[in-house]
This record gives sequence, C-alpha cells and structure tokens, in this order.
Amino acid sequence: MLTYSFSDTGSDSLYRHLYKCIKNDILTRTLRAGEKLPSKRTFAKNLGISVITVENAYAQLISEGYLYSIPKKGFFVSDISMLPPKAALSQNSPSRLQALPEETERPGRAEPAGTSPLYQSDSAGTADPSGGRGPLIDLTSNQTDIRNFPFSIWAKLVREVLNESQQELVTNPPCGGVQKLRSAIAKHLRDFRGITVAPEQIIMGAGTEYLYSLLIQLLGFDKTYAVEDPGYRKIARIYEKHKVACRHIPLDEYGVCVPALEESGADVLHLSPSHHFPTGLVTPISRRYELLGWAARAENRYIIEDDYDSEFRMNGNPIPAMQSIDLSEKVVYINTFTKTLASTVRISYMILPRHLAERFYRELSFYSCTVSNFEQYTLARFIENGSFEKHLNRMRSYYHKKRDLLIDRIRRSELNPRAIIREENSGLHFILELRTSLSDAEVCERMLQKGLRIAALSSFYSQFTPGIEHRFIVNYSALPEEQIDEMIRILCSVIDGKDGLPQIARQS
Amino acid sequence: MLTYSFSDTGSDSLYRHLYKCIKNDILTRTLRAGEKLPSKRTFAKNLGISVITVENAYAQLISEGYLYSIPKKGFFVSDISMLPPKAALSQNSPSRLQALPEETERPGRAEPAGTSPLYQSDSAGTADPSGGRGPLIDLTSNQTDIRNFPFSIWAKLVREVLNESQQELVTNPPCGGVQKLRSAIAKHLRDFRGITVAPEQIIMGAGTEYLYSLLIQLLGFDKTYAVEDPGYRKIARIYEKHKVACRHIPLDEYGVCVPALEESGADVLHLSPSHHFPTGLVTPISRRYELLGWAARAENRYIIEDDYDSEFRMNGNPIPAMQSIDLSEKVVYINTFTKTLASTVRISYMILPRHLAERFYRELSFYSCTVSNFEQYTLARFIENGSFEKHLNRMRSYYHKKRDLLIDRIRRSELNPRAIIREENSGLHFILELRTSLSDAEVCERMLQKGLRIAALSSFYSQFTPGIEHRFIVNYSALPEEQIDEMIRILCSVIDGKDGLPQIARQS
Repeated sequence: MLTYSFSDTGSDSLYRHLYKCIKNDILTRTLRAGEKLPSKRTFAKNLGISVITVENAYAQLISEGYLYSIPKKGFFVSDISMLPPKAALSQNSPSRLQALPEETERPGRAEPAGTSPLYQSDSAGTADPSGGRGPLIDLTSNQTDIRNFPFSIWAKLVREVLNESQQELVTNPPCGGVQKLRSAIAKHLRDFRGITVAPEQIIMGAGTEYLYSLLIQLLGFDKTYAVEDPGYRKIARIYEKHKVACRHIPLDEYGVCVPALEESGADVLHLSPSHHFPTGLVTPISRRYELLGWAARAENRYIIEDDYDSEFRMNGNPIPAMQSIDLSEKVVYINTFTKTLASTVRISYMILPRHLAERFYRELSFYSCTVSNFEQYTLARFIENGSFEKHLNRMRSYYHKKRDLLIDRIRRSELNPRAIIREENSGLHFILELRTSLSDAEVCERMLQKGLRIAALSSFYSQFTPGIEHRFIVNYSALPEEQIDEMIRILCSVIDGKDGLPQIARQS
Repeated sequence: MLTYSFSDTGSDSLYRHLYKCIKNDILTRTLRAGEKLPSKRTFAKNLGISVITVENAYAQLISEGYLYSIPKKGFFVSDISMLPPKAALSQNSPSRLQALPEETERPGRAEPAGTSPLYQSDSAGTADPSGGRGPLIDLTSNQTDIRNFPFSIWAKLVREVLNESQQELVTNPPCGGVQKLRSAIAKHLRDFRGITVAPEQIIMGAGTEYLYSLLIQLLGFDKTYAVEDPGYRKIARIYEKHKVACRHIPLDEYGVCVPALEESGADVLHLSPSHHFPTGLVTPISRRYELLGWAARAENRYIIEDDYDSEFRMNGNPIPAMQSIDLSEKVVYINTFTKTLASTVRISYMILPRHLAERFYRELSFYSCTVSNFEQYTLARFIENGSFEKHLNRMRSYYHKKRDLLIDRIRRSELNPRAIIREENSGLHFILELRTSLSDAEVCERMLQKGLRIAALSSFYSQFTPGIEHRFIVNYSALPEEQIDEMIRILCSVIDGKDGLPQIARQS
C-alpha cells in the first residue's frame, strides 16, 4: 500500500504533508490517472494518523482537481495528462495553476502564510477542508452577505441608467471618472464627513490597490514609503511589488510613532487613522496633528489617509478625517465602496490636494478611468437619490446588532472566562484575546482543521514582537448568525486541547 | 505539378483546405523558400477547382506572409527559415481562425501632445474648440457610437444576472477573474481565434493599461522593455511612468526590425502584430517566427502581443496570433472588450504562458480582480449565448460599410487627386496621405481650428524621420456618416490654403 514517511514534515501539519506527498506523486506520474487510492480508514491506519487527517488531504486534492471520488467506490487519481510532464515536475509546491482567490480588502484574505492557498474555488463551500463537517466558518473574510446587498434598488437604477443615459454610457469620461459620480461623492463627503473638495480633486479607480499604484507614479518611485507595523500586509506588498523603498513604522497606543517615522527617512506615510487594521486603534486628534506637522516639515512629504471603513464606527461621532484638518495640502484621502456596497463592486476613489490634482492631470491623464461607466452612473444615482445614505444606516445598524449579539453569546458561553474582547467600538472587526497554552500558529492551524479560519494579530507584525500573542482577529462582517455557536464551540475545544489532536508542548 | 487531394476536406471550404495544404507543405519544408507555385489558372485546372478558390487561398497565404507575389512573374514561397523545423511540423493542423476581440484604446486618446488634456468633459459637445461652428469632427476618437452598443440584449442579461446570480455577484472571485467568464473567453478564443488555453491562464483586468502595469510587476522592474517606433505612445508612456527602461525599436516594411531589437538589449518586446497602430502594418508570419526566435534565445525574453483590434480585419481571415504559434511559452497575449463592446466598458484580459501564470498566482494573487463581478457575469452570458459573436459580425459589417462609404466619398470628391489612401484593409483606421505644402503640425492645428481633429503619422515617431510627412490617421470608428462631407470640405480647404489663415512657408 501507498506509504509516506511522516518523520520530517517540516512546519507542515500532518494533513498538509500528506496532501503534498500525494500531489507530488500525481504530478510525477508515480500515481497514474484512474488509480484507486486506499480508503481513508485503511490509509490512516497504515500511516498511523487519524482518519480526519486523510479526509482533509483528500478533500483538498479533490477541490484542486487532482483526485475525484465515486460514491461507494472510493477515491481515484484524475487525468492530468493535458499538463506536459516537464511542467508537471516543476509543480512540487502546492497552489500552481489553481485560480487562487485574491486576498480581499482589509480583514479580507490577507491571511497568515499557509492558509491562503487552500481555498481556491469561486464558491465558499467547495473547498471545505472540514471533511463535510459543515461549511467553513471564516473570520477573515470580507465577503458581503447576499442579504446585505441592495439588489432591488440597484437593479432599478441599472435599468434606469440603461434606458435614460445611453449616450453618457458610451461617452468616454475624463481620466478621473464620470463627473456626475464625482459630484455626488463630493456632496456626500461634505454632508456626512465634513470634507469639502471640488469634484475634480476626486479620482475614481477600480479598487484602492489600483489607486496605490497610481499614487506611486504620481508621488515618485524614488520616494520612501512608510506603512504601519502591524498593518494590513497587502499595502506593504504592493509597495514592495513596485520596488519602492518601504519602511515599517511601529505603533504606540496612539498610532504611528512620530520619532520612529522621522528616523525612517520616509517621504510618504500610508496609514488608516480612523480604524487601524488589525489592532482596531483609532488615532486621536493630537497624534493626527503631530503627523500633519511631520508632513509639513519637508516639501515632498505626504500622508495617504486610508479611510477604508470609517462609515462603520459604532459609538460616538467619527473623528474628523485628517484630510479635513489638513491646511498644508499634504493629505491624500482614499476610500472605497467595496466595503459599504459589496467587495465585488470595484469602485474606489482618492482625493488629491489641489497641486497634486494638477500634477495628476498634467502627467497621468493619458490613463483611462478603470471603472466602467455603467457602474459609475448607477452608483451616482444611488448616492444622489439618498439610497446610499439609507443603505449605510441600515448596514451600520445591522453590524451593530451583529456585533452585540456575537459579544453577548461569547460572554454567556464557557469561552467567557478564557477570553477578552478588545477594540470593539469601530469598524467590522475586534480582537479576541484567548487564554491558551498553544502558540498562535498552532491555534490557527487547529481551528482550520476543525473548520474555523481565524488570523492571529501576531501574524500582521513585520517581525516577532513580544506581548502580543494569543490575540486573534474576529472579522464578523461575513459571519452568519447561525455559525456563532459552532464558532464558540470550536474556539473552546481548541484552546482546551479537547480537539483530539496530540497535545503539543507550549512554545515560546 | 503540386497536387492535393480534395476527397477529405472535413468541414473546411475548398479554399480553406487548399490554404491548409500549402501552408503545411511550407511549414514542413516540402515547399522550399523561393519555390514558384503554379499559376492560379493552371493550378485550378489541375486540382479540378475554380480559379477563385485558388485565388482566395493564395491571398490568405500572402497576407499571412507564407507566399509573396511578383507582378507578372507569379507566386513564390517565403523564407520562413527562422522557424525551427520541429516547431513547424507541429503546425500541420492549422487553427480555426476568425475574429477576436480587441482593444479600444488605440486610435483613442493617445493623442499628440497638447490635444489630450483638452477634452475631459463627460459630453462630447462641451469641449468644442470650433467656436460653435458645429460639433467637433474627431478622427482620433475611439468613442463607441451609441447606435452600436447592444443595449437591449445587454439590459436583458444584466437583469438576468441580477435576478439569478445574486450569490455569485457578491462572492469574491479568484484574483484572475470570474471563472465563468474566463471559461467563456477560452472557448471563444478556441472557436474563433485558434488559441487554446486553460481558463486559469486568462487574467481579467480593468483595461489593458492596468494589465501592462501588472505585467511589469510580473516580468520585473529591472527588465528593459521595447516598444514599436512609430507606435501607440500610451504604451511607452506607461513604461516610462513606471520608471522601467524603455527602448524604441524602428519598424521596416514587415514590422519590428530584429537586428535593432537584438542590439537594443531589450528583454521584453511589446508589439501589435495583427494591426500596427498607427501604420496599419500586419506583421507577416516569417517576421513573427523571427521575433519568436529572438525571444527563445534568452531565458528572460518575452513578447507582449497586443491584439487590440484583430477582430476588425476587413479582408480575408485574420493571421494566427503569435500566441498560437509560440511553442516556447514566450508570448503574453493581451486583448480587450473596450474596442468590441464600448470604450467605456473596462474589461480586458491577458493570457499568460503556464509558467508565468504560476508565477502570477505565487507572487501577485494578493491583488483583487479590478473588474466588478456584475460586469464579468453579464459579459460571460453575452459570450456564452452567442450574442458576442453576433455583435462582432454586425460590427464588422458595419465598419466595412462605413469604410467603403468613406473611401468612396473621398474618391468622388475634389480631395481625390490630392489624397492617397493606404493600409485600409485592417482594423478601424487607415492612412490618408495628403498633397500639401503645409507642415504636419500646421495641418493638424488648422484642422482643429476649423473643427476637425486629426493626428499626423509623424507625431507617433519617437524622433524625426524623413519621408513620412503628410500622412494622417483616419480613425473612422466614431465618425458619423453625416460628418463625412464636412470632413472632406475641411480637409480640402486646409490643404488648399483656402482657410483664410496666413499662408506659411513650406517647411522641411
């Protein structure tokens, strides 16, 4: 019978090691198309591992197309002969031509190494590693709940636009986007966020990631960019992929440390003062002024204010955007509709200070706007007729209730004495501190094996930082109410060590 | 004499069968470079088919570069010696060719310096520089005519998607785009362009410009990029804005000069072999193989094949994409729906060779797809239910008629003796050579003052090049029929010097 050694699994879990071994044998044609694999039970017995481990490995291989199963017959090797053997041989590390899901916005999928290659299908259910124990509970997803997208009003507006605005739909907009939409956004920002800008300062783009790239072209490839540490890793990755110098600036309890920033030699600071990801920190007004002061002290210094979920502050009034208190034209404000509407609606915008807007039109106006007119005109109507504000209020109240319910359930559960909830007053995630003897990596790995995906705060730091272990990020925006109890059950069983996996000695 | 059997032509027409037979013999070296082919009449008699069938086959082979003709001498086999014999042998089942979607940008707004920042308004009329003399006649615009967008079918499909695919609409797609759309595109490419790819090799993006930027991140900021000279200037600008080394490679009558390319030290060549902008040149098959040979000679060399308007070839079948004859995984193929659907629908895609697709998923999968799900699902249905193919056929016939009408009107007008029309058989623009004593800049400036925007071929060269003056680009895709006469009137009056402006001494 097929046998693999488990003596050297490196940093891989047992299931991941087994998955890799089988995949490699398929790619090298050691296992041939149509060949039957051992039954889960027999295989587990032979290898000295649990049935669930085999089950997880098989499930993953099925979802990636390497195996197929025939009910009551067993598991078989797929025909991958379309792939030339040479190419196949180079495939010994997982996640090749599979269509990986992008990491999505903020609490999104910017997940700890090791988890990301797993869930590669279009629909959430198919890559379930829990071996049929129920759908994956995902506390890292920003996916919009289908019940929360305003389908009926959106459909009505799309119909109107397609009937009434045909000429506008096929007319090339200015490089910054459709004027009607930019005017609607300017009015919305004035009325609800205290930001006063000319529509011409607003530049539309297909997602904030695209806008970051435009900003690098505008501010300069020769500049040094600073990001928050810990922070939303995708931002640092984008700077790194553009080969610009990128510094990680530590945070203190008020946000970005000004002395460290000064010392870094950075020209451009990229931060999210309204609600920091992942810590949940809200930068107080005093620190905001300090940072504006830093920017004012040199000509080429700028601040990119990433206001990605300021709409969802739960308690009190929102703190004024840095953009609105900036008198030196140093702040570029970025926001998006991917969080307020749906993660799959790719419409974001940035507000440039006037002199940067002028530079943009002078140097970058040859770029076509990346957002289709159809969606720009639909969104313009959605904002203009008040639907957006109504939708925001509804979502705010929905998330508020959801958060309260979730916290209440945790507090009433057996998890309560072993958990502390932090930074729950803003945005769509909070921090859950767990009392456990397991390492962060072990917790995440075991949770995942039991069908719960969760990320550790420590995984968002650029380097090891003591004192931040055992804190996990609960992004509840995509968590269905029905899954709360199961989530708590898994959390308890893992930190209790009741999960049936061999107890592992405490690390660190 | 050369003889082929017509007993088993499969589903091919006689001409197509003959075309394939000859092509195969050329590729396998059965017919050798310089060899003379039978005259059309003799060949037809020998094979028992009509002269017109032979004529069509020869015409297609000439347009693809396999044959060349010498007037009064006959037809001869081209030198395709750059092609490695092994590669040639595998070509014996020619791909089914037809129309492919392409990219709208081209004749679009990449206009001569000074004109582009002017027209940034939402509606065509407001930026009219003609001082109220009537709407601007714009021969540089890629704007879709409102009558040509398939509004009713599009509206129907949007409605269906919003009703039937709500869960899919809010589900984050893989970083490469919605699977359903990529599968539909793969099928379309196979059926109509002879390109066989896995959907996972297709990466969707909000416009080709965005894809160029992704490609720089994928292929490397440290690489040297080569562009065509003359060429679509926006491409060079994008490379320059990304601060990567960019070389301008001169063209000869067959396209990019290989010795100049070799000498430039370039790693990546960006070209549009199907229909070069602005010259209209179609790169023949022999040069395509030479360029593939260049790419194959070093590990990091790649070719970006920008197939932006191959769907609109007017005569004969399109030439096979370089992607489809590339056996060394060296070609990245790029195309767009902005030209085939509407310039304001921002959906483009690139096809990566397998090893680059793997690298993309490994290194760049953290990026979210920039195209909204709503449009991806709508477009997927549009392609799947055959509407796209129908639309393409309708547009091809529409542009064909429009071109014929325009050329006919020019030929019947007083402009005729002073104008030569060139390169009118492909894509959506041709070259108009005018007999005038004015410099190119003067012509463009005076035309614009009279309400006609036109670009000179010379303005697309990176440096002054003698012998290309007085050639202007007529992009007729957005020219309403009603404006043709006025356009001719303005052209005549300006080149005659009857425009009332002070006569300027001939330059150059």
